Amino acid sequence: MTAKPELVKHPLVTRDMTGPVLRLTLSNPPANALSIAMMKHLMAALEDARNDNAVKVIVIAAAGRVFSAGHDLKEMTAHRTDEDRGRKFFAKTMGMCSQLMQAVVTHPKPVIAEIDGLATAAGCQLVASCDLAICTDTSGFCTPGVNIGLFCSTPMVALSRNVHRKQAMEMLLTGETIDASTAREFGLVNRIVPKEYLHQVVQKYAEVIASKSPLVVKTGKEAFYRQAEMSLSEAYDYCAQVMVENMLYRDAEEGIGSFLDKRKPHWTGE
Amino acid sequence: MTAKPELVKHPLVTRDMTGPVLRLTLSNPPANALSIAMMKHLMAALEDARNDNAVKVIVIAAAGRVFSAGHDLKEMTAHRTDEDRGRKFFAKTMGMCSQLMQAVVTHPKPVIAEIDGLATAAGCQLVASCDLAICTDTSGFCTPGVNIGLFCSTPMVALSRNVHRKQAMEMLLTGETIDASTAREFGLVNRIVPKEYLHQVVQKYAEVIASKSPLVVKTGKEAFYRQAEMSLSEAYDYCAQVMVENMLYRDAEEGIGSFLDKRKPHWTGE
Amino acid sequence: MTAKPELVKHPLVTRDMTGPVLRLTLSNPPANALSIAMMKHLMAALEDARNDNAVKVIVIAAAGRVFSAGHDLKEMTAHRTDEDRGRKFFAKTMGMCSQLMQAVVTHPKPVIAEIDGLATAAGCQLVASCDLAICTDTSGFCTPGVNIGLFCSTPMVALSRNVHRKQAMEMLLTGETIDASTAREFGLVNRIVPKEYLHQVVQKYAEVIASKSPLVVKTGKEAFYRQAEMSLSEAYDYCAQVMVENMLYRDAEEGIGSFLDKRKPHWTGE
Repeated sequence: MTAKPELVKHPLVTRDMTGPVLRLTLSNPPANALSIAMMKHLMAALEDARNDNAVKVIVIAAAGRVFSAGHDLKEMTAHRTDEDRGRKFFAKTMGMCSQLMQAVVTHPKPVIAEIDGLATAAGCQLVASCDLAICTDTSGFCTPGVNIGLFCSTPMVALSRNVHRKQAMEMLLTGETIDASTAREFGLVNRIVPKEYLHQVVQKYAEVIASKSPLVVKTGKEAFYRQAEMSLSEAYDYCAQVMVENMLYRDAEEGIGSFLDKRKPHWTGE
Repeated sequence: MTAKPELVKHPLVTRDMTGPVLRLTLSNPPANALSIAMMKHLMAALEDARNDNAVKVIVIAAAGRVFSAGHDLKEMTAHRTDEDRGRKFFAKTMGMCSQLMQAVVTHPKPVIAEIDGLATAAGCQLVASCDLAICTDTSGFCTPGVNIGLFCSTPMVALSRNVHRKQAMEMLLTGETIDASTAREFGLVNRIVPKEYLHQVVQKYAEVIASKSPLVVKTGKEAFYRQAEMSLSEAYDYCAQVMVENMLYRDAEEGIGSFLDKRKPHWTGE
Repeated sequence: MTAKPELVKHPLVTRDMTGPVLRLTLSNPPANALSIAMMKHLMAALEDARNDNAVKVIVIAAAGRVFSAGHDLKEMTAHRTDEDRGRKFFAKTMGMCSQLMQAVVTHPKPVIAEIDGLATAAGCQLVASCDLAICTDTSGFCTPGVNIGLFCSTPMVALSRNVHRKQAMEMLLTGETIDASTAREFGLVNRIVPKEYLHQVVQKYAEVIASKSPLVVKTGKEAFYRQAEMSLSEAYDYCAQVMVENMLYRDAEEGIGSFLDKRKPHWTGE
């Protein structure tokens, strides 16, 4: 994994490998705001991990009591004195944020959000954008932009693709925080874990996924989000083709063969 | 708020303002059927509220034990003796109903359904069409058209955009009533409240939303339903633009500024 | 109901009528694999039932402890020695499977999955494809293809149209089995029944639906899946038309008339 030198100097996002799992930790507490710099670091880390064969699964975690409080309001406010009242900078921020979130969705490796604390606005969006999410029982989630005159419009793109319409609307219109248990019930997180076990549960969970063929996981993840936007018949036409190609992977031959032979598979990623 | 004189004469829908909250009460018990007249009154009330700056949030409630039993079957049956066997009248009814439901969705103000009793067929559809819904623990919801030879096809448009597919299908195919707790679990209502507190909880809840910038709420609500029909990348392109424009509202400047200054915001709706 | 002679010889799918309910039982335990032969039998049975007026509702059940373990891996593996490494056969399998699942969705009669045991991969897909599903409390559901190098890409088409995104992703990426209670919470099944009552509850439930007008049920089911793929305004335009036509059915006249007259309706299916 090669990190650009200027990124290493200010590690807004720390990178740790434990086995096949890359842990990216937002490391600018207390807010872990998604400033331009933070988003750049996170995108660079994701980009570096794309073709790094050692990385099988990515965990996005955070230092401190807040997973992420969303955009950096001070940074944005500072640009109100620009000649264009900040329009260009706001467009840059929102464009980069949308790019970051889609980079998570289109990333070839599964991305798991590990939350211990509050995930707010674009922070909540980041959780919603991940493939999976595990949080502590004291975590909370909200899209409170409406309280400060800035509706969480980009966060709701991810949120409304995770939870039911009225549930998303309640979060967006009231700005109120839902607790971990409600988030699980809504479909925003997969599992709730006591704080003292969070790291090890997420690591274990990531390792389970990391033990699968990375090529097969990549194929499946990509197909999942693509078919989700198709009609039923288009989705079947497309996924049937994906399955045929997948059957011809060496890893499918090995996986099915080892299953029939009752032995452990050995993936070559081909 | 100007009401057309002929509407005031027969207040099928009563209108009450409490603070910034407009309460529209379906007032034709016991069934509160969505007759042509009732739909016209409700649409007129919604239309009047569109540009009424005093109205920040709308509550749709009902008098009596039934929220609404749906279309007026007697009115429809009476038209079976028309030359065209009622086709034109049925088309008028269904067209007007679809228009009413979409008027709720596209309304610039949040609309909250307040249910204490049974919401049936198009009555259930009205609940599903609202942005939010709060009901008493003795409320029930059903789409029982299948029992009388008229599948709840227009109601299911709204219902299936609120709840999971198999859950909607069960309601539609069996015609059975789900209780408040199931409706909450399914995502059809947001909150369940004891009967004696219903009014005050809904009012309080509406006032929380009414305390936000109406321009920002309007922007966000519109964007929510539009992005819901887009692909992920289209939704991000669109919502990123919405966010940029929203950032340039005076209310965003005020909201974010007051948040950073730790004072209460003062909205101007600009 | 006419069954082709060669199908009767090896009844991989047994057919039983109890009243208006056709029970199709996958009868190749222990795996009830969806081999080419099994899929052909199931499709033939569904096809025969399309225009069989005696059949009002279809139940798909299974013999043994496994509802269905999905595709026949041995059958597929045997074709790896084909000149094209099996490509043509895999395409045939996936194409037939997609056709089968869509035949359930587009079938004019409601199809209920009755599960007592494990539904795996394409077996889980079959459950997800049915309009409704009832299972025992010891049933389980999984999409474990990822464990054997073959991501459950076609199964996820159905699964992701039943449950929330992160819930589907967890099943797909971990391959783990969810229990009956989780499946109900997710929206994959409608009801959980103790094993000793499964048959009679499903039969009763099917008979409730079978007591409705078959024409109306057919109309509604078709419209349901079609409108689900439309935008809100398209869905309303389409379903409003469906409602008008439905109002002109003799069964709607009878159903509404009998309701207003407080007598039982008599359906003619017109």
